[in-house]
Amino acid sequence: MLHFECDYTRGCHPEIMRRLAETNMMSTTGYGEDEFCESARAKIRAAIGNENAAVWFCVGGTQTNATVIASLLKPWEGVIAANTGHVNGHEAGAIEHNGHKVITLPHDNGKISAGALSAYLKGFYADEAWRHIARPGMVYISFPTEYGTVYSQRELDEIHAVCREYKIPLFIDGARLGYGLCAEGGDVTLESLAKSCEVFYIGGTKVGALFGEAVVFADKEMCPDFFTAMKQQGAVLAKGRLLGVQFDTLFTDDLYLKISRNAVDRAAELKNILRKKGYRFHIDSPTNQVFPIVSNEKLCQLKEQINLSIWEPHKDGWVIRLCTDWATSEEEIKELETIL
Amino acid sequence: MLHFECDYTRGCHPEIMRRLAETNMMSTTGYGEDEFCESARAKIRAAIGNENAAVWFCVGGTQTNATVIASLLKPWEGVIAANTGHVNGHEAGAIEHNGHKVITLPHDNGKISAGALSAYLKGFYADEAWRHIARPGMVYISFPTEYGTVYSQRELDEIHAVCREYKIPLFIDGARLGYGLCAEGGDVTLESLAKSCEVFYIGGTKVGALFGEAVVFADKEMCPDFFTAMKQQGAVLAKGRLLGVQFDTLFTDDLYLKISRNAVDRAAELKNILRKKGYRFHIDSPTNQVFPIVSNEKLCQLKEQINLSIWEPHKDGWVIRLCTDWATSEEEIKELETIL
Amino acid sequence: MLHFECDYTRGCHPEIMRRLAETNMMSTTGYGEDEFCESARAKIRAAIGNENAAVWFCVGGTQTNATVIASLLKPWEGVIAANTGHVNGHEAGAIEHNGHKVITLPHDNGKISAGALSAYLKGFYADEAWRHIARPGMVYISFPTEYGTVYSQRELDEIHAVCREYKIPLFIDGARLGYGLCAEGGDVTLESLAKSCEVFYIGGTKVGALFGEAVVFADKEMCPDFFTAMKQQGAVLAKGRLLGVQFDTLFTDDLYLKISRNAVDRAAELKNILRKKGYRFHIDSPTNQVFPIVSNEKLCQLKEQINLSIWEPHKDGWVIRLCTDWATSEEEIKELETIL
Amino acid sequence: MLHFECDYTRGCHPEIMRRLAETNMMSTTGYGEDEFCESARAKIRAAIGNENAAVWFCVGGTQTNATVIASLLKPWEGVIAANTGHVNGHEAGAIEHNGHKVITLPHDNGKISAGALSAYLKGFYADEAWRHIARPGMVYISFPTEYGTVYSQRELDEIHAVCREYKIPLFIDGARLGYGLCAEGGDVTLESLAKSCEVFYIGGTKVGALFGEAVVFADKEMCPDFFTAMKQQGAVLAKGRLLGVQFDTLFTDDLYLKISRNAVDRAAELKNILRKKGYRFHIDSPTNQVFPIVSNEKLCQLKEQINLSIWEPHKDGWVIRLCTDWATSEEEIKELETIL
Repeated sequence: MLHFECDYTRGCHPEIMRRLAETNMMSTTGYGEDEFCESARAKIRAAIGNENAAVWFCVGGTQTNATVIASLLKPWEGVIAANTGHVNGHEAGAIEHNGHKVITLPHDNGKISAGALSAYLKGFYADEAWRHIARPGMVYISFPTEYGTVYSQRELDEIHAVCREYKIPLFIDGARLGYGLCAEGGDVTLESLAKSCEVFYIGGTKVGALFGEAVVFADKEMCPDFFTAMKQQGAVLAKGRLLGVQFDTLFTDDLYLKISRNAVDRAAELKNILRKKGYRFHIDSPTNQVFPIVSNEKLCQLKEQINLSIWEPHKDGWVIRLCTDWATSEEEIKELETIL
Repeated sequence: MLHFECDYTRGCHPEIMRRLAETNMMSTTGYGEDEFCESARAKIRAAIGNENAAVWFCVGGTQTNATVIASLLKPWEGVIAANTGHVNGHEAGAIEHNGHKVITLPHDNGKISAGALSAYLKGFYADEAWRHIARPGMVYISFPTEYGTVYSQRELDEIHAVCREYKIPLFIDGARLGYGLCAEGGDVTLESLAKSCEVFYIGGTKVGALFGEAVVFADKEMCPDFFTAMKQQGAVLAKGRLLGVQFDTLFTDDLYLKISRNAVDRAAELKNILRKKGYRFHIDSPTNQVFPIVSNEKLCQLKEQINLSIWEPHKDGWVIRLCTDWATSEEEIKELETIL
Repeated sequence: MLHFECDYTRGCHPEIMRRLAETNMMSTTGYGEDEFCESARAKIRAAIGNENAAVWFCVGGTQTNATVIASLLKPWEGVIAANTGHVNGHEAGAIEHNGHKVITLPHDNGKISAGALSAYLKGFYADEAWRHIARPGMVYISFPTEYGTVYSQRELDEIHAVCREYKIPLFIDGARLGYGLCAEGGDVTLESLAKSCEVFYIGGTKVGALFGEAVVFADKEMCPDFFTAMKQQGAVLAKGRLLGVQFDTLFTDDLYLKISRNAVDRAAELKNILRKKGYRFHIDSPTNQVFPIVSNEKLCQLKEQINLSIWEPHKDGWVIRLCTDWATSEEEIKELETIL
Repeated sequence: MLHFECDYTRGCHPEIMRRLAETNMMSTTGYGEDEFCESARAKIRAAIGNENAAVWFCVGGTQTNATVIASLLKPWEGVIAANTGHVNGHEAGAIEHNGHKVITLPHDNGKISAGALSAYLKGFYADEAWRHIARPGMVYISFPTEYGTVYSQRELDEIHAVCREYKIPLFIDGARLGYGLCAEGGDVTLESLAKSCEVFYIGGTKVGALFGEAVVFADKEMCPDFFTAMKQQGAVLAKGRLLGVQFDTLFTDDLYLKISRNAVDRAAELKNILRKKGYRFHIDSPTNQVFPIVSNEKLCQLKEQINLSIWEPHKDGWVIRLCTDWATSEEEIKELETIL
């Protein structure tokens, strides 16, 4: 079976595995206070050009989203997100479990717009009863989105400007950040993204690590107790250096972007193949996720040879999702071509 | 100034005040274990024709909704509601504060339909990823709705049937229950409504009491620890008999329905007046809430003489809400007529 | 049966009832934005000599404690309290339900000491692992305590100084505040107490009101969103003026302290009677709660004629609690004398 | 520097690392539904002799404790634990963050007794006000305890009998389970322990794995939605097979117990050395944690050459903790000997 159902079916980049094995029998301090974490933090701070940033390492995405959001909101505040946002649909109510409403805005290919955000916020405070309603206390976007689309730098800037106007932080979920930074036609860089929000995370799990997400607060004074927040959420890894080693490797010699580019390149090849074969697309996604429309019959046939994701029903059958990742090879794409 | 902005601008029915004054210096056991509460419980059980029901008294609506929902759901379960449902929009995130997602369905004049509910639930379990998503664990509807509309008995039965199919309880928010039971053209009775759900509450605050809501579980075994649930939510009134005296009075000589009918009758008169004067309505509401459409100019004029609610913008100006209540007099309606 | 089991067995002071009846059919704005609430707030601000204070009205004590604590703590912070504190033992886990640990210190007759508090805080930050532990974020004391004892002004000042040293607020639960202010030998006044903490509440439920607690923040900027916090907790009363009318009455012509004094005077008489009859006391309580020790036999006899509280087992039988209140009459004490 | 401060300073057992590397580039289904997890589950079920057990894999201990406890308790229930229990002191309030009180009993060398437990529960329900108090809904013990001590099988049975009498589950935190099962003089086996509780976990992080804890419910019907509970807590690892591979390895050829025995043997050697050198012990711990008492001077000297834990102050200086682990070598003990 070919695996194209998601971007976390494999382990980690071989160089990461090599370093994990190499350092395995070392003894270090726990909880992320080791030299590997320190080194990784320094490299990330350098990569974003912000020495004042605080960098923390969590294990997985849902945990990271819940911890960041819970650490910044007041109890009666909610987080604004696209209705397709991961925090809204696919985290088993983790945000609400932390006491906060996910306030949804309609999405456009997975994105929200500064205009819609501004209109919502203006309308909120115009309502006589606003003090009776969960307060918008943060904006959450994902980059790239759950549909594989990306914001342009201008779109990010506009959204960030609205946030600043209302004095609420912007949080960018970068579970697939690398793929977003390498998006076809994209103009956002790690450094520019880091300047366009108050907090974001650099996804490792889906981009070459065994697991791990690096949370970056632009201002280290924003949440000085974040370690305790993480601990309370069960997000502190005892052998924290495992995260340090991984992110240190990903941020050495530009590995993170190099392997991200591979995924986007393979996805571009895949889209070409699909296009040539006459498939139509549900959405034009410039990163590592591809959303062709297939008939019921075709779906049954494909499922026998490919692990894929069924995205949603479509009048002509189904939208499916095929993902490439940091390790997808040209050979795998060619093998896939023979089946499609 | 005339007060038509809501149905809780006055105190309580004079008979309730009389009995509160009369019993004021008595000493009784606290926390709802007194004779007045017992008497009120017995009368409510008789009124719904269910001796097996558990009846509890809370102080206000948001508190009641939060306590009922939190007492029945697992941590990862959410409650399905119309997007216009009070638990979704007007409780400052109280349900989420208790850890639960409000899963919204589109409304039709404030109501959800059995069909939409069934489609949602079917779709939920059809999703490959359903175990990653907040589980629908309860259905919440309001009777009457936030738009003053009511479900027919058949609609209730159909919704309840879907709930039973999926083994999730139906909870009916009856903050304005009396007005719903007296709705023009309605066919739901207190007894039939009580049989159409697992738990509901009889609103007192908006229907003649100073405050208070009577929660009714059809099966007293459903939540035997509800007292402790209430205590944890700060919903136990030390001098619980205040609630007992009020509900005992409301359920003596049919007072609850008699005064409810007054509100609906006055609203009907008001709608006639508006219709004659050429106002159009945003919605045809058969209970005590009336939603005329007014121009900006008209709104400014009305606000000088009437306290009213501004509901939402409309292409021709604004939708406003005028409420009658258990005490609205014909004189007040006539006075209002001169202003409109 | 005589009722001495607690101080909330009766309704309210007749003057309050008179004013509730008198204003009953008035229409006012809801949610505490009416003229009665405004007047009550002004009188309370005057009584404490602080025009910058924010005053809010809640319905009951557990609700008030939970709302104040939840509105001021970060998610990973706990509240320090005596192990006998009401928030620790008698609120069904309401503080934990809001996500916060109650960090207990041993009590001395219901009180904590500045020394023990300081030692705890010093020890906390001396622990290598302090970032792994729920953070002390607030100090809670009750005045008077659950044992009816009171802090001296000096004790309050010392505790407050420790709080300021660690930059954490001091919250004083005044469910029985009036009785504490009238304590035999006490030197704390409403004004001095208000200056000795960041937030406290003035108990109404146990001191002459039907229900209601007035929360006072010394600095109104401390929690500007407290209304929304209350709403989320179900602590906003729709007909908020009921609280305004009650506290306005209590703070007119010094009624609050006058009726409080009655309770303390009657308790002093009761203690004299008990002493003369040879009873010993578990604790020497200078307010309205009296804790005699009785044999098993005596207890059985008393329970036939008096409603009382069984406090805890004692080697010679039981400690019981007898409470006087704002309305206890000399006649009732004399009747009690014949039984004891 | 020698590392004896805890049992999670190194990576994982080399055989685990070998298998992680070997399987690294394989693609598998995510979230623990892969063949490695299935194999590990089967081996654990076989090892405990219970085919009806449900086995789930979490990443770390705090997360596991919070998820298990939150998945089984009602909102108003708390968990009983020794005051020294990990859930009480070292998880940053994670249990309270989930809404539950940790109800503490005094410990005896880290353990609670069936007698104290029974007395507490009896007293709880004897209190007139029990419905006002957080309900005991579960018992938590750790095996071995935070002091390295172990319960005998008889002690476990007695505690479990009390739990069954009150119909509340017993949860055993096995963060260091292997070391407890190999305790000097212990009589508890994995199979007998598994039969002595409703749910427990097998610690991997401290016993040879990179990370990971295997939760075992004796009855798979006890919490059928545990996956969703885990997801909500951020405890589901995307590449779940990493946990499968690790536990599969630990439960092949008895590796888990073999490496556990190493730690206990090395600790026994260390205790002999300390005894010979005249050290006294704070506690007689039969597992991998050793608690000698040292003077201030000695402590300063040791800290220059050994990473160790400072446990608590002692009248003669300090109690320190030295931990061995699955990988501690005889050479390391000998080197340590030269320093002590």
